[in-house]
Amino acid sequence: MDIVKSVEFKGGKLVLLDQRRLPGVKEYFYCENYKEVEYAIANMVVRGAPAIGAAAAYGVYLAAREFRNYGKEEFFLKLKEANRILLASRPTAVNLSWAVKRMEKIMEKEEDWDVPEIVDILKDEADKIAREDIEINRSIGRYGRELVPEGARILTHCNTGALATVGYGTALGVIRAAFERDESIHVFATETRPWLQGARLTAFELREEGIPATVIVDSVAATLIRDGKIDLIIVGADRIAANGDTANKIGTFMLSEIAKNFSVPFYVAAPVSTIDLELDSGAEIEIEERAPEEVTHIQGIQLVPGGVNVYNPSFDITPHENIDGIITEKGVFRAPYKEELTGISLL
Amino acid sequence: MDIVKSVEFKGGKLVLLDQRRLPGVKEYFYCENYKEVEYAIANMVVRGAPAIGAAAAYGVYLAAREFRNYGKEEFFLKLKEANRILLASRPTAVNLSWAVKRMEKIMEKEEDWDVPEIVDILKDEADKIAREDIEINRSIGRYGRELVPEGARILTHCNTGALATVGYGTALGVIRAAFERDESIHVFATETRPWLQGARLTAFELREEGIPATVIVDSVAATLIRDGKIDLIIVGADRIAANGDTANKIGTFMLSEIAKNFSVPFYVAAPVSTIDLELDSGAEIEIEERAPEEVTHIQGIQLVPGGVNVYNPSFDITPHENIDGIITEKGVFRAPYKEELTGISLL
Repeated sequence: MDIVKSVEFKGGKLVLLDQRRLPGVKEYFYCENYKEVEYAIANMVVRGAPAIGAAAAYGVYLAAREFRNYGKEEFFLKLKEANRILLASRPTAVNLSWAVKRMEKIMEKEEDWDVPEIVDILKDEADKIAREDIEINRSIGRYGRELVPEGARILTHCNTGALATVGYGTALGVIRAAFERDESIHVFATETRPWLQGARLTAFELREEGIPATVIVDSVAATLIRDGKIDLIIVGADRIAANGDTANKIGTFMLSEIAKNFSVPFYVAAPVSTIDLELDSGAEIEIEERAPEEVTHIQGIQLVPGGVNVYNPSFDITPHENIDGIITEKGVFRAPYKEELTGISLL
Repeated sequence: MDIVKSVEFKGGKLVLLDQRRLPGVKEYFYCENYKEVEYAIANMVVRGAPAIGAAAAYGVYLAAREFRNYGKEEFFLKLKEANRILLASRPTAVNLSWAVKRMEKIMEKEEDWDVPEIVDILKDEADKIAREDIEINRSIGRYGRELVPEGARILTHCNTGALATVGYGTALGVIRAAFERDESIHVFATETRPWLQGARLTAFELREEGIPATVIVDSVAATLIRDGKIDLIIVGADRIAANGDTANKIGTFMLSEIAKNFSVPFYVAAPVSTIDLELDSGAEIEIEERAPEEVTHIQGIQLVPGGVNVYNPSFDITPHENIDGIITEKGVFRAPYKEELTGISLL
């Protein structure tokens, strides 16, 4: 699966594996300028917090390249305006703003160079962000698999694999790393309505890797947990507040409550770039509400009759009390999260 | 909506509103013999515990009509064999066996008549079961709405309306009855994966009745409950054990756990024919597992890639401790259920 690249820069273009029609249709989406990157993020051509971060970094570079013939002052002004547009493409995943801020930081640090050199430096930084993401995920995998018992039955939600990152994956990276050592594990993948990231993308990745897996509709998870058929739950994250409260795909909170009721360990796996120390708690995280059509239609087929209201939040907040550990590339953090997380260097 | 009949006997045929393609396509399925009724139940042309019961009763009559030229002894033998086939069409909803048993009871009671008279008597009994179902549901509605506060925001799961019964509905009947008195209520309807009874059928019925409603994917319910946006939950039932444990559509258990965690009242609405006093607890209820295609495909479109395992149980068990009351046509029963329920006359 790592042969399939979700985010790659080549031939002067950002090449994204279009996740909207996977696995049925495998198409690439080419971005030659930052507006196309903005479109790709907003419309989920690329999705998954770390993948969005890397795509946004290349978006900043594409904007810089577009403005390379301006004088330095105007170059900076126009680039900052482009960055604001990129930042607004999706609200919940903090990796987006983390990546854009990192690009701005390097731009400010190297501002004495002429514009063409700054453009080159920004390209190098975007490449570095993309390259590092894979290394970070492998590190998350190494720490995380220590928490996976032999023959574990692992429940995961949404897609947090190679397709959600530049490669390898976060929660699915932990599962990959565990499987490298122990082929007797079994994964239960929730289909993850409405966008079906689990049914479409996670199932596809697990099959490609030969990792034994079973797909379930989201509400089957509760009975599996109650009946002792799940040993641990690992999910990804889109934003983690300083107190450990975690925004992740809608349905995560439900899983965490059931896990708590039946004492099943519940872990979050994410790079430290997902931690937002500016927010004290999950109450401050903006939850994106997406179009009703994600719920009412599947691939153009209407499921819900017309004229009916739909409420479609993309994420929910899992309170830190429900989380047994946050698996990062710098180790596994446990409660009290506030003390643990505020000590981490994020950039 | 009651103009649309889900189960009706006319022109010598059982006429079922085909629920597989509703609301997009409105087609009727005609049963001229009991094998067609068996097919219709097994393949969810007709669904919903009370509707299945009524359809099965007509199935018994159609079998009797088919065998009306046999001598009495052979007629009884052949009819009992047909009944066994009907009983095996779906395992979880007890209303199916309740209805078949009721037909057998009347057949045995009236066995002194000649075969043609017995056939007529069976037709009358099936008509009575169907007619009574609507009256029963109106009674459930009257008792149930006393539990609905003014302006209540009510969460419901699956479809328990006119389409799941002969008319009016059980849990949705309570909502109908509440709305007749208070137009300020609001319904949150879970889409109910995999078969989408909520998105397709409940949303359709609520829209037709003009009852304010919002459709959500199943895993959104947990955050609405936590955030104080749901005042009570009402669901139907497919089988209720003597201790109050309730088999209902997959996802019901999850809702009941979250409701318990956040002290939101959780009610089951069902006719007493759904109560199975032969079972001490929910552990004895057989849970139907249906074909993976219900999860992997929607209207012929493949969602899950081929070669991936799927686990697709149709129902789950909600333990009696999670249920604040069972609303029946004979009143609202509360814990201790064992004492309350065993006192009821079921036939």
